[in-house]
Amino acid sequence: MDIKRVEEVPANAVEVDGASGVQIQWLVGAEDRPEHFYMRLFILQPGGHTPQHDHRWEHEVFVLEGEGTVVTTDGEQRIGRSSVIHVRPGETHQFCNSGDRPLKFLCLVPVAAEY
Amino acid sequence: MDIKRVEEVPANAVEVDGASGVQIQWLVGAEDRPEHFYMRLFILQPGGHTPQHDHRWEHEVFVLEGEGTVVTTDGEQRIGRSSVIHVRPGETHQFCNSGDRPLKFLCLVPVAAEY
Repeated sequence: MDIKRVEEVPANAVEVDGASGVQIQWLVGAEDRPEHFYMRLFILQPGGHTPQHDHRWEHEVFVLEGEGTVVTTDGEQRIGRSSVIHVRPGETHQFCNSGDRPLKFLCLVPVAAEY
Repeated sequence: MDIKRVEEVPANAVEVDGASGVQIQWLVGAEDRPEHFYMRLFILQPGGHTPQHDHRWEHEVFVLEGEGTVVTTDGEQRIGRSSVIHVRPGETHQFCNSGDRPLKFLCLVPVAAEY
């Protein structure tokens, strides 16, 4: 069993096209050799956003702190602390921080996702 | 895409042997038809605990609020807000609330787990 605290995990800038003001912490990542899914924590600075994109793997998201929006094919929806978002395979999505403090959320993906 | 708030999801008592003072919310459950994993939120009242058990599927846990312990084969370890626990297949585990307010944590499991 591995037990750690978020503070122990390095936060790295996300430098893919379309991302701005985004950091990622791999809370359960490849080094932990999970069988099924990875747990990441995203930190978006005010005004920051992830890329608007879609892919064939799902996301399960839980918002820990802050306020923001999710861009979907049906428009924007507001999210905040304790929002739960299930992004299904193929769905366009983008997370944006619309508040004045960091937006933090967990985002889990299957290990079969492509990076 | 499904977007919900934790408050919208029913909390049900966990009535399996060895559980005491435990509620579960299925944030992403069978009705949501995820491909890979379910997201549950556990609420343990002060003094409450999950069963001490093991099984062949893994858990990924993130503590949202409260204080407690995890019983492992190597003894107890303290957990609290922002603790991350990866329980590997076959590892004995039990979550206990040792504080004076609810202990809340996310616990994700593969859809292939048996219930």
